[in-house]
Amino acid sequence: MLRIGVVGCGAIGREHINRITNRLAGGKVVAVSDLYVEGAHQVGDPLGATVYSNSADLVNDPDVDAIICTTPAFAHKETVIQALEAGKPIFCEKPLTTTAEDSLELAEIEMELGKKLIQVGFMRRFDESYTQVKDLLDSGEFGAPLYLRCSHWFPEVDDGFTTEMAVYDAAIHEIDVIHWLLNERYESAQVMFPRQTGKKNPELKDPQIMHIRCKSGVIATIEVFLNCQFGYDISCQIVCENGVIDLPKPPRPLLRRSGGQTIPLDENWKNHWMRAYDLEIQQWIDAVRAGELTGPNAWDGVIANVTADALLRAQQNEGQIEPIAVGPRPDFYK
Amino acid sequence: MLRIGVVGCGAIGREHINRITNRLAGGKVVAVSDLYVEGAHQVGDPLGATVYSNSADLVNDPDVDAIICTTPAFAHKETVIQALEAGKPIFCEKPLTTTAEDSLELAEIEMELGKKLIQVGFMRRFDESYTQVKDLLDSGEFGAPLYLRCSHWFPEVDDGFTTEMAVYDAAIHEIDVIHWLLNERYESAQVMFPRQTGKKNPELKDPQIMHIRCKSGVIATIEVFLNCQFGYDISCQIVCENGVIDLPKPPRPLLRRSGGQTIPLDENWKNHWMRAYDLEIQQWIDAVRAGELTGPNAWDGVIANVTADALLRAQQNEGQIEPIAVGPRPDFYK
Amino acid sequence: MLRIGVVGCGAIGREHINRITNRLAGGKVVAVSDLYVEGAHQVGDPLGATVYSNSADLVNDPDVDAIICTTPAFAHKETVIQALEAGKPIFCEKPLTTTAEDSLELAEIEMELGKKLIQVGFMRRFDESYTQVKDLLDSGEFGAPLYLRCSHWFPEVDDGFTTEMAVYDAAIHEIDVIHWLLNERYESAQVMFPRQTGKKNPELKDPQIMHIRCKSGVIATIEVFLNCQFGYDISCQIVCENGVIDLPKPPRPLLRRSGGQTIPLDENWKNHWMRAYDLEIQQWIDAVRAGELTGPNAWDGVIANVTADALLRAQQNEGQIEPIAVGPRPDFYK
Amino acid sequence: MLRIGVVGCGAIGREHINRITNRLAGGKVVAVSDLYVEGAHQVGDPLGATVYSNSADLVNDPDVDAIICTTPAFAHKETVIQALEAGKPIFCEKPLTTTAEDSLELAEIEMELGKKLIQVGFMRRFDESYTQVKDLLDSGEFGAPLYLRCSHWFPEVDDGFTTEMAVYDAAIHEIDVIHWLLNERYESAQVMFPRQTGKKNPELKDPQIMHIRCKSGVIATIEVFLNCQFGYDISCQIVCENGVIDLPKPPRPLLRRSGGQTIPLDENWKNHWMRAYDLEIQQWIDAVRAGELTGPNAWDGVIANVTADALLRAQQNEGQIEPIAVGPRPDFYK
Repeated sequence: MLRIGVVGCGAIGREHINRITNRLAGGKVVAVSDLYVEGAHQVGDPLGATVYSNSADLVNDPDVDAIICTTPAFAHKETVIQALEAGKPIFCEKPLTTTAEDSLELAEIEMELGKKLIQVGFMRRFDESYTQVKDLLDSGEFGAPLYLRCSHWFPEVDDGFTTEMAVYDAAIHEIDVIHWLLNERYESAQVMFPRQTGKKNPELKDPQIMHIRCKSGVIATIEVFLNCQFGYDISCQIVCENGVIDLPKPPRPLLRRSGGQTIPLDENWKNHWMRAYDLEIQQWIDAVRAGELTGPNAWDGVIANVTADALLRAQQNEGQIEPIAVGPRPDFYK
Repeated sequence: MLRIGVVGCGAIGREHINRITNRLAGGKVVAVSDLYVEGAHQVGDPLGATVYSNSADLVNDPDVDAIICTTPAFAHKETVIQALEAGKPIFCEKPLTTTAEDSLELAEIEMELGKKLIQVGFMRRFDESYTQVKDLLDSGEFGAPLYLRCSHWFPEVDDGFTTEMAVYDAAIHEIDVIHWLLNERYESAQVMFPRQTGKKNPELKDPQIMHIRCKSGVIATIEVFLNCQFGYDISCQIVCENGVIDLPKPPRPLLRRSGGQTIPLDENWKNHWMRAYDLEIQQWIDAVRAGELTGPNAWDGVIANVTADALLRAQQNEGQIEPIAVGPRPDFYK
Repeated sequence: MLRIGVVGCGAIGREHINRITNRLAGGKVVAVSDLYVEGAHQVGDPLGATVYSNSADLVNDPDVDAIICTTPAFAHKETVIQALEAGKPIFCEKPLTTTAEDSLELAEIEMELGKKLIQVGFMRRFDESYTQVKDLLDSGEFGAPLYLRCSHWFPEVDDGFTTEMAVYDAAIHEIDVIHWLLNERYESAQVMFPRQTGKKNPELKDPQIMHIRCKSGVIATIEVFLNCQFGYDISCQIVCENGVIDLPKPPRPLLRRSGGQTIPLDENWKNHWMRAYDLEIQQWIDAVRAGELTGPNAWDGVIANVTADALLRAQQNEGQIEPIAVGPRPDFYK
Repeated sequence: MLRIGVVGCGAIGREHINRITNRLAGGKVVAVSDLYVEGAHQVGDPLGATVYSNSADLVNDPDVDAIICTTPAFAHKETVIQALEAGKPIFCEKPLTTTAEDSLELAEIEMELGKKLIQVGFMRRFDESYTQVKDLLDSGEFGAPLYLRCSHWFPEVDDGFTTEMAVYDAAIHEIDVIHWLLNERYESAQVMFPRQTGKKNPELKDPQIMHIRCKSGVIATIEVFLNCQFGYDISCQIVCENGVIDLPKPPRPLLRRSGGQTIPLDENWKNHWMRAYDLEIQQWIDAVRAGELTGPNAWDGVIANVTADALLRAQQNEGQIEPIAVGPRPDFYK
């Protein structure tokens, strides 16, 4: 039984604690920490977990085998370094850090240690819709991918949602999953703003069309639409030499009523990815227990930061092609 | 240019006149008749057609090459006999007559004449959804058909719609199209009444499930639901030895809105079959001009009556198996 | 942590052991038994589980809190009685027993004990496709169900598969799930054999169409096709007063290739229900730990036997209506 | 009956002659011409049509009321001018001419004449899939269109097919239909070449991604893939403020066989648009007889040329934004 310490007892932290406790095998939450220590007690006491007010103490608790970090992004780096120094595996929610430099620094420390300890929380890789697509691509049956188009549509966002957040809170998932699907390296990014919806905060750019060009020439287009009104809707269509693959939608009943045949759409992202989160954490527990992490690693965290930063520059310079300057994947991370 | 006389200037008569005049090639309406002669004038005068108050005069007008009969069903027989006597081709709306005996009598007269002059208005055979299914079945690729299930669903019917009309005004179309699709002869009929909807006239049986067994053993199930509330919806699924064929739905846009992905359904039967009617009448005009009718003939009219009558008996005796006593198709009608 | 003993170490037993050990929370396999004791050792030794050669010893092991029984059906009764006598919860694979009398006997013993200890392995109730349909029906939005049609299609079966097995190894799942979906009691059963496929063992009847009539008049039709050739395919369409609900299919990518747009079908039942089995056993573990079973119970087992027996008689007497003689659900089982 | 002269007796000319003669109402081909006069005789003689070896004589034949021009594109201008001088309506296949200047010249001549005589053969506007989408957009229910994506995929093209032809023989249809659907004016064009398929002539660029920006900011993306291998496939998805509209596919049976559920795709463009051509020519005949053309006019021809030319420049300068310099639609053409 893997003894897990959870740093950060907010919404996502509580969800992971809940799934480890009630739905997954092989793990047990033995410690929790939060700066807001009362929140940590609310979560940890019913489990009999040790409660800490800071991550360092939790990480260094000898009863903690592995750490899950769900703090706000700016605080990830510190906790990850603590885990690396303690030689303990850490699952860190995305993004790994808030800058490419910081993520690269973590990757370098980890490489120096010579052991993969970091997994980054890109849950789509564990979603069974994506893994089916990945298997098909890897089978070679469809030939080389040529271009693809993803849409990432939310029914609506809060007023505080900014143009930049369309990169770090939405497209970041496509950024990770696309290079993983294609076994590709990115070369450059470009953003177009089409006609804007009236159903949004005036400062926000919405929708946005982002193009990422890969080293092989593949163009990946990501449509982010934050206030589409009708539901949470994720699409991915990959055009290959021998055929086209469309990511499946979640299974929902076909309903005949009121003049039409309707398949409902999810209302929000949480239900959509619930199962992928379960599979992600189960896989991490299994991998830690087996002694070798295989999920998205620190280098994937670096790629995400560098690519996201290029998209942020591309947002500032509509139409300009911004290089995505990330070196080849080190052997350590292959 | 085929010179056509139309007997009956009600709704369906006007529609055929309109399509011959405005959408189809090779035909011209030169005469019309209706007992309600004012109605006939309203329709015929703008076309410069000769207007008659009775079908005999129209049929015998030497300028009339061929007849379309759209009068109420009880009046079909008289007009068809007039046409046969005049040796002129006649397109008669379904049902050919109101009894199996009358239809058989017409078939016998026609056989004696030795020339096919009668086509019955079963338009589904010309619908491009059904013809695609027919082509697939005839290709042999799917092997022998084993059973099939059709649904014939209306959003709602008038209060005057009776339980019996579910046979003669709804299932009659499946009765014709199924034996045509399968190249089959019918053996017996059976009706089941499942739980009844509250959205109907209390005297009406709705929904109804009708089973027709073919000589080969194929069971064809027809679900008639007259007040389904949500739209006009036609389905046909044919289970064969090597696979299953589903009749296509009309092409409608997929709409994302209000929490779902919706494909609209038709509101009524008229729009649904508009194109099939055009193809049906065009094919009839072409066949008459080519000198040989190939559409549904008097024998198909007989089969429809005999089968419908068996279903009416089966409605009276829920669960009983009623024989469908129709002889083998005469060579003349093959 | 619930300490579980597994009786029967065949394929399904091993699968449950695997899911409890590697994918689910809150349970631990501490004992296993099998008449073939070497097989039990193969499975139990790596887990450090106690290995027994008979179910009585396992059931009475004080370290065993609850039992899972996956022996052949004829052996269920004995083990269930042992568990009842020991006062321990038991999850018994379907069917509960091989006769209605035996199942009823178990229900009566359990009622006498005054505590629900038996859960029967009808996993479809936990499948997320069915639970979505159940939620929609229970919402009342679609009004009363009127009739429904299920298809249960296998690509092919072994030569040893008999006509009767179409009831106890295929339709049994629809038998359970339909009355659960509709909150209904069954009244009678009827079987029709349509034209038979050539792709089968000559003794086998295939396909079969089974009709079950409910007390309310709802007719449920189950199409069992054991050698459909093209895949494992489960459908369920429920026609209600206000609309129609279609059970969703598993999420599979849409593929364009070779002249068509294709959604793959599963090759066999195992992959199709994998997730439902996980949810079923997790729910059982949770319910046992919470002290109250809520899944399919002994009365559902009785209903399944009685209904299946009626269908077996209906197979013998094609077209005859066979009563399904099962009393109203005792309060104890509500 | 409209007396029609057809200039050009190649494949498309013969098809139009066939549909006018055999499937449409109100028109009659009374004259044909072709430089290859034997070909004209083959086509015209069976119809009893007058046969000419040059378009001028046909246009000026007093028995010819209206002209259809299906010659190669470079020869359109001459025939259209002849028709304008004769004051006779002319249906000219797309493109109107081969250069923006020539098309503009024709528009100016027509405006001077003060009567619309020219219709250009953009048949998609008559396709019932597109007209349904147009009606939905015009209804206002979906709010403002924001961006859209069209794919125009062919199974394969001949070796002689060039990169430029992707504009004038493929995207030209999207160019016309998009501004018509949206009631928009175009502003600029841009082309991206993603990774290239190996299944093509080495000189050809395939696939190509074309972006057209509208005055309102709407971005229309056209994916042209000339050797997609799997079928002729046309998609159009329009993202609006209140929802998303997907162009329907042609109605094809759903087939279960060989491990999947498949909807066939068309093998080539001809079958796909057959019905749209019929509707296009019927509408033109009706409009000429009614005295007022309403289909795509000379100005639409100008827009197509100017936009196509911008795309050709954009192909030469990958990634560059090329202006689409076309003035506002003259009142005459509204």
